Amino acid sequence: MGNTFGHLFRITTWGESHGGGVGVVVDGCPPGLELAESDIQPDLDRRRPGQSSITTPRKETDTVQILSGVFEGRTLGTPISMMVRNEDFRSEAYNEMAVKFRPSHADYTYHAKYGHRAWPGGGRTSARETIGRVAAGAIARKLLKLRWGVEVLACVTQVKGLRAHVDPQTVRVEDIESNIVRCPDSAMAVRMVELIEEHRSAGDSVGGIVLGVVRGLPVGWGEPVFDRMEADLGKAMMSLPASKGFDVGSGFDGVTLTGREHNDAFRSEGGQVRTVTNRSGGIQGGITNGETVYFRVAFKPVATVMHEQDTVDVQYANTTLKGRGRHDPCVLPRAVPMVEAMAALVLIDHALRHEAQCGR
Amino acid sequence: MGNTFGHLFRITTWGESHGGGVGVVVDGCPPGLELAESDIQPDLDRRRPGQSSITTPRKETDTVQILSGVFEGRTLGTPISMMVRNEDFRSEAYNEMAVKFRPSHADYTYHAKYGHRAWPGGGRTSARETIGRVAAGAIARKLLKLRWGVEVLACVTQVKGLRAHVDPQTVRVEDIESNIVRCPDSAMAVRMVELIEEHRSAGDSVGGIVLGVVRGLPVGWGEPVFDRMEADLGKAMMSLPASKGFDVGSGFDGVTLTGREHNDAFRSEGGQVRTVTNRSGGIQGGITNGETVYFRVAFKPVATVMHEQDTVDVQYANTTLKGRGRHDPCVLPRAVPMVEAMAALVLIDHALRHEAQCGR
Amino acid sequence: MGNTFGHLFRITTWGESHGGGVGVVVDGCPPGLELAESDIQPDLDRRRPGQSSITTPRKETDTVQILSGVFEGRTLGTPISMMVRNEDFRSEAYNEMAVKFRPSHADYTYHAKYGHRAWPGGGRTSARETIGRVAAGAIARKLLKLRWGVEVLACVTQVKGLRAHVDPQTVRVEDIESNIVRCPDSAMAVRMVELIEEHRSAGDSVGGIVLGVVRGLPVGWGEPVFDRMEADLGKAMMSLPASKGFDVGSGFDGVTLTGREHNDAFRSEGGQVRTVTNRSGGIQGGITNGETVYFRVAFKPVATVMHEQDTVDVQYANTTLKGRGRHDPCVLPRAVPMVEAMAALVLIDHALRHEAQCGR
Amino acid sequence: MGNTFGHLFRITTWGESHGGGVGVVVDGCPPGLELAESDIQPDLDRRRPGQSSITTPRKETDTVQILSGVFEGRTLGTPISMMVRNEDFRSEAYNEMAVKFRPSHADYTYHAKYGHRAWPGGGRTSARETIGRVAAGAIARKLLKLRWGVEVLACVTQVKGLRAHVDPQTVRVEDIESNIVRCPDSAMAVRMVELIEEHRSAGDSVGGIVLGVVRGLPVGWGEPVFDRMEADLGKAMMSLPASKGFDVGSGFDGVTLTGREHNDAFRSEGGQVRTVTNRSGGIQGGITNGETVYFRVAFKPVATVMHEQDTVDVQYANTTLKGRGRHDPCVLPRAVPMVEAMAALVLIDHALRHEAQCGR
Repeated sequence: MGNTFGHLFRITTWGESHGGGVGVVVDGCPPGLELAESDIQPDLDRRRPGQSSITTPRKETDTVQILSGVFEGRTLGTPISMMVRNEDFRSEAYNEMAVKFRPSHADYTYHAKYGHRAWPGGGRTSARETIGRVAAGAIARKLLKLRWGVEVLACVTQVKGLRAHVDPQTVRVEDIESNIVRCPDSAMAVRMVELIEEHRSAGDSVGGIVLGVVRGLPVGWGEPVFDRMEADLGKAMMSLPASKGFDVGSGFDGVTLTGREHNDAFRSEGGQVRTVTNRSGGIQGGITNGETVYFRVAFKPVATVMHEQDTVDVQYANTTLKGRGRHDPCVLPRAVPMVEAMAALVLIDHALRHEAQCGR
Repeated sequence: MGNTFGHLFRITTWGESHGGGVGVVVDGCPPGLELAESDIQPDLDRRRPGQSSITTPRKETDTVQILSGVFEGRTLGTPISMMVRNEDFRSEAYNEMAVKFRPSHADYTYHAKYGHRAWPGGGRTSARETIGRVAAGAIARKLLKLRWGVEVLACVTQVKGLRAHVDPQTVRVEDIESNIVRCPDSAMAVRMVELIEEHRSAGDSVGGIVLGVVRGLPVGWGEPVFDRMEADLGKAMMSLPASKGFDVGSGFDGVTLTGREHNDAFRSEGGQVRTVTNRSGGIQGGITNGETVYFRVAFKPVATVMHEQDTVDVQYANTTLKGRGRHDPCVLPRAVPMVEAMAALVLIDHALRHEAQCGR
Repeated sequence: MGNTFGHLFRITTWGESHGGGVGVVVDGCPPGLELAESDIQPDLDRRRPGQSSITTPRKETDTVQILSGVFEGRTLGTPISMMVRNEDFRSEAYNEMAVKFRPSHADYTYHAKYGHRAWPGGGRTSARETIGRVAAGAIARKLLKLRWGVEVLACVTQVKGLRAHVDPQTVRVEDIESNIVRCPDSAMAVRMVELIEEHRSAGDSVGGIVLGVVRGLPVGWGEPVFDRMEADLGKAMMSLPASKGFDVGSGFDGVTLTGREHNDAFRSEGGQVRTVTNRSGGIQGGITNGETVYFRVAFKPVATVMHEQDTVDVQYANTTLKGRGRHDPCVLPRAVPMVEAMAALVLIDHALRHEAQCGR
Repeated sequence: MGNTFGHLFRITTWGESHGGGVGVVVDGCPPGLELAESDIQPDLDRRRPGQSSITTPRKETDTVQILSGVFEGRTLGTPISMMVRNEDFRSEAYNEMAVKFRPSHADYTYHAKYGHRAWPGGGRTSARETIGRVAAGAIARKLLKLRWGVEVLACVTQVKGLRAHVDPQTVRVEDIESNIVRCPDSAMAVRMVELIEEHRSAGDSVGGIVLGVVRGLPVGWGEPVFDRMEADLGKAMMSLPASKGFDVGSGFDGVTLTGREHNDAFRSEGGQVRTVTNRSGGIQGGITNGETVYFRVAFKPVATVMHEQDTVDVQYANTTLKGRGRHDPCVLPRAVPMVEAMAALVLIDHALRHEAQCGR
């Protein structure tokens, strides 16, 4: 249960790390949208492991196939099924995973919850699961851009203690994509890469923060009281593997301000209502106010490290476990397209919900 | 749209600040639970304004009525409808609100989204909306305690720059409720109250952080990949008025640790799997692991301040607005029961979902 | 569970026969609609018992109150909560119901399912439960009429063996409402009333058929493959108390035709596509084709009769039970507004869903 | 939109007649169930065209692949993705379908609703769409049988004017499957086959009735007031292609009985409550009462006939269209597994919902 996301633009993902493949069904995509695999593949390429020296070296091509919902190059309004085949293999290195739980992974909780667990590669808990999200998110982003001129992007702003200062208003995709860590501050990016390399060499890993940005939004998207824009964004981000925190606008830092300091004054500009500052993060009362939406997602350091750690086995006896082979020292660069995808999925769903209720 | 929360224990809230009242319908509550207004009223009393010198002085009794779903003192398995009547009044002080948008409130976004707005008292955007949540949450908490021995509580850990150190494992309700700011560190509580009073006198307001704690959890609650426990908790908290951030376990602070430092080693204790540390915050892979769940919710300072602020009116012309009468300088003590309620609603829903799929 | 209906125009009903009252929360109603109790009350008056000599003589005024979602006479886009207070009483006549299950009622199944049952007046299984549906349906009908010019109506076409021939294309509300049985064929209506009176005198009851009609529909409403228009209409009608069957267009009678006989030829008329015949009942492939939608709902005879019947008690011991007082010999005239309400709720939900996906 | 069915055992189907394939994702299946393609394939074989002389001669093998959710032969509790590849081809015969709407098919409504239509083979409106339902239904049936001893079956009881008398209590699968029309009355089956052959030779088609039966049910499944068992069964059946009617228990025939005649007396038998008759069809107040559930589904005659018919083209100009090649004269034998599948999907969903709310 729990593998469907969204109401009107609704996705259902499926698939384990090893097995037939991973995929997604998108229901509710408007008809008539031009769509081909080439719209999807670039985001999958940004998500896949092995794309640079600082991600996991596992090589997967992650080639997407659109199986339904598109005819003669345009969407039909029927479900869009997309699949990426697994390049299945089981190395000896995996065998220990069958009988021991990796610390701070989901092996134990899946074992305890379901009683039966696909241990190769982590099964459903593998980051491969996000392929379906990113594929669906690529459609959402295309629609948002074409219909509403809304732009969704994300970048890395912090790796361990290294913080970049990024302005959500002006950050450019070119700058984000100009380096392998996906931090638009190129000087900081160099240091971040160094830090990650260091920890990889030490068999260790690092976490950090991804900033999500949505620009060009209309006023009015968001469905209070429960489906506020920030609530659905929060859920979306907290559903990503390894995420531990979310805040929007002034966020956790805003709690040290007073009301007078924090409030965003309104100003009228050419018949449009704007705010002078944007501590609200583009959302007021759960509804977009036309300003840029920006939010942060905290990712913990990757749990797989190349060191012996205390753990228990499937008999619940104490033992130890040590990661083998090469590991992924930092999930952040690959988390960028995941954050973009989930944000786009939230936004398109809210766009359609808003039009349904308030569109006339 | 967006006024329903939950799947199996599902609540729908309704009501504006002024008008007939506010309420909630709870669908899916198991039958046979002993239930009376006296189970609900205490939490509403902890939520209501005017309960202490540091909250808004508005006096409302918020007396709850159970209208359905209970017969001869026990739940029927049918919808439980609960209502609190509004003590309706419209003072002259409100009139300016009809034509001007309060900065960092939802007046403008509601106006723009819906085209028609209940301005008295903020209408649906008033914190009165949370009455239904707290009433439903009281039922959820009772069920969690009775059936699973699960305890849900919350407390204030930060007001502006003042931080209390609170251990989720040991914090006690008596200590939380021993002071009006609901901070279990009594020395810090005194300073927090002083700080709030100061800002109230200055016509200003403060924000801060509420810590949520869930103890006594079984292993296995949570529905990946989208309805992870932390994702649904995150949505629940981000749906509260004035919340700007959420994190769980090590959260935003955890990003500065390495994987080796961050991982929670497993140990077997008397046939049970436990973690030596709890940076995961009781959730791994979206599923509870039996350890204490703890999370933080950031609340911005209250937007209503007793100072003239720049804003626009309903004609989108520039103007100014100044709060009148007495204001609420700090939402935090009243947010405590709201956080508890929303956490309990998430947990009970997941408890039932887990039993449905994995219960046999 | 199961007390919510609809996706975008979503209603949640609550309430038992005896207790605080019965009601409904409507979430998703577009803002700006003029709405007052006077839009709702007429349909409730057509639904209530005691309105004529052939319905149950129980006198209830069923006065509706709008508690939220409307401000200065127009909807806000927030949940509309409506309530009808119960005029609570418990007569001695009811006591037997506490310990014996009425045959072909839901007493036994509720007892067995929930373990705890509100026996007075049947509790949640009372037809009073439909008050919330009819109140919500009145809003849906108003919207359908105003925005799309869609007209929803229903009438009685069969009482026991007496069948009226009614043309869905031309049947008029005035003719339906011109007699107490709500059959537009006035000669047949007289015979139907006589038949019902006869059975009432004999302490017995009759069933029959209600015809539902929707005219003025656009092409394109309906969401295959599962949420086809006829599927959602079918569910809506089969969710009404005492309904045992549903068919649309040619329905059960159509099975004796061949494909050549049954097919509706298309013809172009002034740039519009029309069908020459309408055996499809205005729906093809689950989507409205612009022709009149018509469907039948079969209602069984009322289960309460004034005769001793074999049954069991709450100890599962054999016993007998005899209805007392005056009974409702025929639910059909009161079912007419229920059918209209449910049809309108299905249609408005599909209207909004269609606009969300295909509206641009 | 509208391609998801169920709440806790939830399926999402996808796929057009021509294109990559058709499939289904099942979310919520309990973990630990033994499952392989061989559990699914037999029902797909009963559904596929070309299995006998009286169905469409199109030859498709419809070989199912399980792509996820199963590991080492048992379900994981994660989504089960199943797919059947299309054996794609486009003959010249199809070209006319690109520009003309087949009468009483969904070509026109899809064209008008979505603006863009997959015309080859009917696209999403093809009966191939039901492959996903039947595959998912096979899992549901297996679970129902294993966990609750509940048996779901269906058979043909009427072809055009030919009616078989079938007792839901005693009908046997062997008798149903003993002939190609799937009617357990073997004498009548012979006549039905003859009738179908006759109409096929004449280029025409016939409709009829399928009886659905569920035996071995516990008391208590069904979620009033909207998600009554008969309401969800009704929706399920009315969502099948070509279905025009649904009734349960006494159904449309029951309307000519009086209350005294219709009521099912209760009797206690060995501590169990049973009904003497079963006009209720095993459901009272929307909840199963432990008796056999039986219901009828009316299917219209297949719309494709080998005769010239009036229609319009995509320019909305009048024209004619004549079916070519060989056609399917009767959908009924293939509808049997579809009815079983949909019934099983409704029942398993209700089983899980009941256990979630009332299971303890």
